[in-house]
Amino acid sequence: MRRITPSGEIIRPDTLAVEEPLEIRIRGESLTVTMRTPGHDIDLVHGFLFGETLIAGAADIHSARYCAGTDDEGHNTYNVLDVGLHAPIVLPARPFLTTGACGLCGRTALDEIRMRSRYPLPSPEPLLDAEVLAVLPDRLRSRQSVFDATGGLHAAGLFTTAGEVLAVREDIGRHNAVDKVIGWALRENRIPAPDLVLVVSGRASFELAQKAVLAGIPVLAAVSAPSSLAVDLADESGLTLAGFVRGETMNIYSHPERIRGSTTTG
Amino acid sequence: MRRITPSGEIIRPDTLAVEEPLEIRIRGESLTVTMRTPGHDIDLVHGFLFGETLIAGAADIHSARYCAGTDDEGHNTYNVLDVGLHAPIVLPARPFLTTGACGLCGRTALDEIRMRSRYPLPSPEPLLDAEVLAVLPDRLRSRQSVFDATGGLHAAGLFTTAGEVLAVREDIGRHNAVDKVIGWALRENRIPAPDLVLVVSGRASFELAQKAVLAGIPVLAAVSAPSSLAVDLADESGLTLAGFVRGETMNIYSHPERIRGSTTTG
Repeated sequence: MRRITPSGEIIRPDTLAVEEPLEIRIRGESLTVTMRTPGHDIDLVHGFLFGETLIAGAADIHSARYCAGTDDEGHNTYNVLDVGLHAPIVLPARPFLTTGACGLCGRTALDEIRMRSRYPLPSPEPLLDAEVLAVLPDRLRSRQSVFDATGGLHAAGLFTTAGEVLAVREDIGRHNAVDKVIGWALRENRIPAPDLVLVVSGRASFELAQKAVLAGIPVLAAVSAPSSLAVDLADESGLTLAGFVRGETMNIYSHPERIRGSTTTG
Repeated sequence: MRRITPSGEIIRPDTLAVEEPLEIRIRGESLTVTMRTPGHDIDLVHGFLFGETLIAGAADIHSARYCAGTDDEGHNTYNVLDVGLHAPIVLPARPFLTTGACGLCGRTALDEIRMRSRYPLPSPEPLLDAEVLAVLPDRLRSRQSVFDATGGLHAAGLFTTAGEVLAVREDIGRHNAVDKVIGWALRENRIPAPDLVLVVSGRASFELAQKAVLAGIPVLAAVSAPSSLAVDLADESGLTLAGFVRGETMNIYSHPERIRGSTTTG
């Protein structure tokens, strides 16, 4: 890698965030290929299948194994995970297309693309202090091992309402980082998680908000901005959505009842 | 929206980046749903279909129209675009799954997921000055109208080697922003573009690098980090990939021959 600066050029090795494809198969049939950072692939597959509402929980999966294929040098590439399920599921003809025959035509967007959660969120009651929520992004950041080296990874973390970190996962894809951490929680039998907080390092898109809702996690906090549709979904689903959670300030876009007090009464 | 700060709480209206689903249909058959920021949808569809190698250029599309569906209040939701093509194409059974029957099992990742470009990049020769490349992110940023208001959008821009901006597109999705700007170039008959530079506001993933290669754009510059697979693809495809292009410094990860000089000879 050649680095160009005002004082000249330097040629030096560089540390890059790793991106590799992962093909997910269900009983040998290819479901999808996702670009991901290798590591915690089992968590990823749990979270992904749950987020697509193809499984209800970890108990639906009886096995997940890497295919035995090897590259020219005889190494397993670990790029294909074949998942065995206890019950047969109907694979979608077109994954990620969650609409019916009529599609999105003439419907309100939100109604057509949202998935029904198995775990309706409890009605908003005070759950955690604003001061606690405010420090979670820093705690997430401090647990990001790969980001420090590469500057290129997204992170997602699950925290208790007291601010304790339970799990942090990193990935080059924002959705994958969330799938990994929710997959971890599924495998730990912690879903639904009415007492946990999901923190993400970047923006809060519709899809991330939906993943929180599906997992029964009542609070989603993002370091950066939410989208309009994320706010709409949060509002309708009873999700507390916080954005721009940085330092001592934050914006609460929906259901602020769960966040106890700011530092003053204002 | 409730804003919490150390000095108290403020309740105020907020400007959010708009995120809406767009369903893309080919002759009435649903192909995919993408979450996008409305605007420049025709560009987006051109770039998307081109990036999936489903069309060779703008001439393959003879029509693109929004479905006539309306919501409860009688407004067209503009969330479904039906595309008419001159020649029939075979829709993939599972979109985004570009592998063959054997899938990724035991193959090298890059060989299996890369798409063959119609426009091989010319062999690297000096194309633009490092000083010019260095200022492009600022020029991109200065053209981002929505980001300033919301802090939530990605941008992609096409520039000449003299640093002139040709087109800038914004979207809540990084891939969409690139699809929109390449779609614009397709419609302007500027693809392949051996004399243009693609600049993106965030990271350079494999998929963004692939979009540049497919469009015959020889230089991709990102404000943030590239992934390992993006660098691999750039290296093999003859793409000049620059990352962390900020202020006066940048990293060149592949084919630096196209970048003339740094500010000193180092």
